[in-house]
Amino acid sequence: MALDQYTPEEPISSIATALAPAALGIVRVSGKGCIELVSKVFSRPRALLEAPGNTIVYGWIQKIDEVMCAVYRAPKSYTGEDMVEIFCHGGPAVVTAIQNLMLKSGFRQANRGEYTFRAYINGKTDLTKAEAVREIIDSHTDDSRSHAAGRLAGALYEEIDSIKKLLVDTLAAIEVEIEYPEDEETIADTFDKGDLEKADKRLAGLVASWRGEKLYQDGARVVLAGRTNAGKSSLFNAILKEERAIVSDIEGTTRDWLESWAGINGIPVRLFDTAGLRDTEDVIEAKGVEISRSLVHEADVVLYLIDSAAGMNEEDKGFIESCKVPLIVVWTKTDLSSLRGAERRGNPAYEEAYISAKTGTGLADLFNKIEALLTQGLDTEREQAGLGSARQKDAVAEALECTRHALATASDNYSLDAVVQDLEDALDSLSEVTGAITPDDILGSIFANFCVGK
Amino acid sequence: MALDQYTPEEPISSIATALAPAALGIVRVSGKGCIELVSKVFSRPRALLEAPGNTIVYGWIQKIDEVMCAVYRAPKSYTGEDMVEIFCHGGPAVVTAIQNLMLKSGFRQANRGEYTFRAYINGKTDLTKAEAVREIIDSHTDDSRSHAAGRLAGALYEEIDSIKKLLVDTLAAIEVEIEYPEDEETIADTFDKGDLEKADKRLAGLVASWRGEKLYQDGARVVLAGRTNAGKSSLFNAILKEERAIVSDIEGTTRDWLESWAGINGIPVRLFDTAGLRDTEDVIEAKGVEISRSLVHEADVVLYLIDSAAGMNEEDKGFIESCKVPLIVVWTKTDLSSLRGAERRGNPAYEEAYISAKTGTGLADLFNKIEALLTQGLDTEREQAGLGSARQKDAVAEALECTRHALATASDNYSLDAVVQDLEDALDSLSEVTGAITPDDILGSIFANFCVGK
Repeated sequence: MALDQYTPEEPISSIATALAPAALGIVRVSGKGCIELVSKVFSRPRALLEAPGNTIVYGWIQKIDEVMCAVYRAPKSYTGEDMVEIFCHGGPAVVTAIQNLMLKSGFRQANRGEYTFRAYINGKTDLTKAEAVREIIDSHTDDSRSHAAGRLAGALYEEIDSIKKLLVDTLAAIEVEIEYPEDEETIADTFDKGDLEKADKRLAGLVASWRGEKLYQDGARVVLAGRTNAGKSSLFNAILKEERAIVSDIEGTTRDWLESWAGINGIPVRLFDTAGLRDTEDVIEAKGVEISRSLVHEADVVLYLIDSAAGMNEEDKGFIESCKVPLIVVWTKTDLSSLRGAERRGNPAYEEAYISAKTGTGLADLFNKIEALLTQGLDTEREQAGLGSARQKDAVAEALECTRHALATASDNYSLDAVVQDLEDALDSLSEVTGAITPDDILGSIFANFCVGK
Repeated sequence: MALDQYTPEEPISSIATALAPAALGIVRVSGKGCIELVSKVFSRPRALLEAPGNTIVYGWIQKIDEVMCAVYRAPKSYTGEDMVEIFCHGGPAVVTAIQNLMLKSGFRQANRGEYTFRAYINGKTDLTKAEAVREIIDSHTDDSRSHAAGRLAGALYEEIDSIKKLLVDTLAAIEVEIEYPEDEETIADTFDKGDLEKADKRLAGLVASWRGEKLYQDGARVVLAGRTNAGKSSLFNAILKEERAIVSDIEGTTRDWLESWAGINGIPVRLFDTAGLRDTEDVIEAKGVEISRSLVHEADVVLYLIDSAAGMNEEDKGFIESCKVPLIVVWTKTDLSSLRGAERRGNPAYEEAYISAKTGTGLADLFNKIEALLTQGLDTEREQAGLGSARQKDAVAEALECTRHALATASDNYSLDAVVQDLEDALDSLSEVTGAITPDDILGSIFANFCVGK
């Protein structure tokens, strides 16, 4: 969506709730004159027109539905413009009928993220909070949501702001030096590098946070593999029962393999069960094997299941040895088999876990091992805000490059002007993160990732 | 759900929007002290506690999400109790986290329809309007929604009320006669039967309305059958493209046949495509034939497709002759074939239609023929309110039986007391419709059909 299609103030309307039968649904409008436009199809136009901001008016939208209208008056609203939120019954037919009526009544269908875009250009939010809104809506686990909520509350904004202050202070000190030069021996002595070093360190911390944050946003792919009857489906179901992630029912899948979101120790995980892909003896098998292979190939972690009673055979060994992704050998059905002593000695080449999907024994241990593999080398214990998007990471990494360069320039006794240029570039990059300075094309792509109605 | 589990005033909470990623979500609470309970987990407790009814307060629910809280004060609310509606971001994780917090903060999970039940016992709605709420949420086409909205606006309530008035007036006239008897020859002369006859006629009209209303609520089953390559999938897709009904994406199907809701001339139709069920040559075929047969058997209308170029063969004739449900022979691919003249002469035994799914030619005519078959003998042109549920129909049919009996009693010159008894019984039945008098078990089953949060 090109940014010139986001025309501020123009009355826009959209459905803001999921289109599925529910108690309530919301149609949301914003823009100049939007209260008047709604009043023309409302049973109590005067009540609506005279409603103070942040109040709710009861009435009918034509003969379509009995509704409550929340009235917001600029600048006290989400977008900073006049707004009406129509709370109607949550039937898809009702919500659709009201939205269609709005489109006939002078409103344009809102683009993705257009409400939040208006909030941004009207100074109601910065880009870190705006992106956190999208993130919070798409969260698959409560931990993911919690990370996003921190950014929505302004944690990242404040961290960036505080780093910018360090850089501005450094810049100010240098400017004084340029204006009133003393006869120091070296550039390194002309300003206190402490603040710059602090900023540099915190920028590096932010950049490092992204891989961990990304894991909580996008999730990881965990694939269950193993011979027929190794217990793949039982483990798949046991994990879902224990740790079903927060997903919409809408994400149904009609693929050849089983796939579902699960939350493993708070990490969103797309769990794949390859069961069935190799269970047939006919021509379909070849295709099944191929799909299996590509699932395994793209996995972040593979759980390779072996029936404890059956033990490891050549096929198992072949798979394990050829597998190129992190792998846990999961000995299953430990409730049925006592042949575990020998196997339990472990093999240093891969992780092992021992479970009974039936009794639940060993699941917690398995989850810890999956978590350890997924978070290896990631900074997930970070207490300060982390980054919320690849876009933010790119801009912060650019700023970090500038501070690195500035520190090197200072050490190399190069010109003060070069340091000033680096710091100004770093500040520009950081301003991109919060949106104080942001090119239009970047803005466009940020809001295009939103859902409609937000 | 037994009715004793609906405990008025107890603070209840539930998610009121569909659990799928969307701009906004709603958690709704009602009951004594509910504003205080929410204020304990709200960033601006005082603002919430002091908020007048029908106003909106901005703040955070703990650190979970930035929200707007709509505050309603008894009796001016949906339930007639104090209420708070928490408008949060529409991510399933957020909405779930807030609802879970409510359950830890002194709220009980609301039962199905419990908000509407409270509205009913607090005199905010009658049963015809309450049932219209459920209906409006479940509507599959705009016509279905429109019928329900009429009942929500009180059309059925007023019709029932006006019939009750006719009966009460008749009763009053008879009571006067019993108190102050004159020496008329016959009972038939003792009171003006005009009102009773009017009431009787209107009750009969209401009962007759139900089959048509039911069609708009529940929809009809239309099955596409025919030989391989008769064009079943093309027609299926063409109908969906033209007339997709308003359904949630949630109703995905993983069956062996294709199935989707469509709106045919405003009538919700479950459209089944049996394509593929007979297309394989292996052991699966037997099962496919069986499923096909049962789909056809349960259909309200079967569309039997024949490729116009291929013409009708013995298999086609066999199917058409043995089919027990209303059937339309649909000649397909009319854009490709010119061999239509002879076929078009028609066969009096069944309806025929001529279409090209590719160009869309003939679809409108086919839709009209389907509509005609589905509405045969139904009163769908009715201008007054129709009935909205089987429960209402049963009660009105009982009332009708009483007025019929009263009229017969009066004609037969039987005792006035018997007429009085009939009229009182009729009034009781009508009071059940609106809920002025309704046994607990009926109430329980009405609200158990609601979605949670309503």
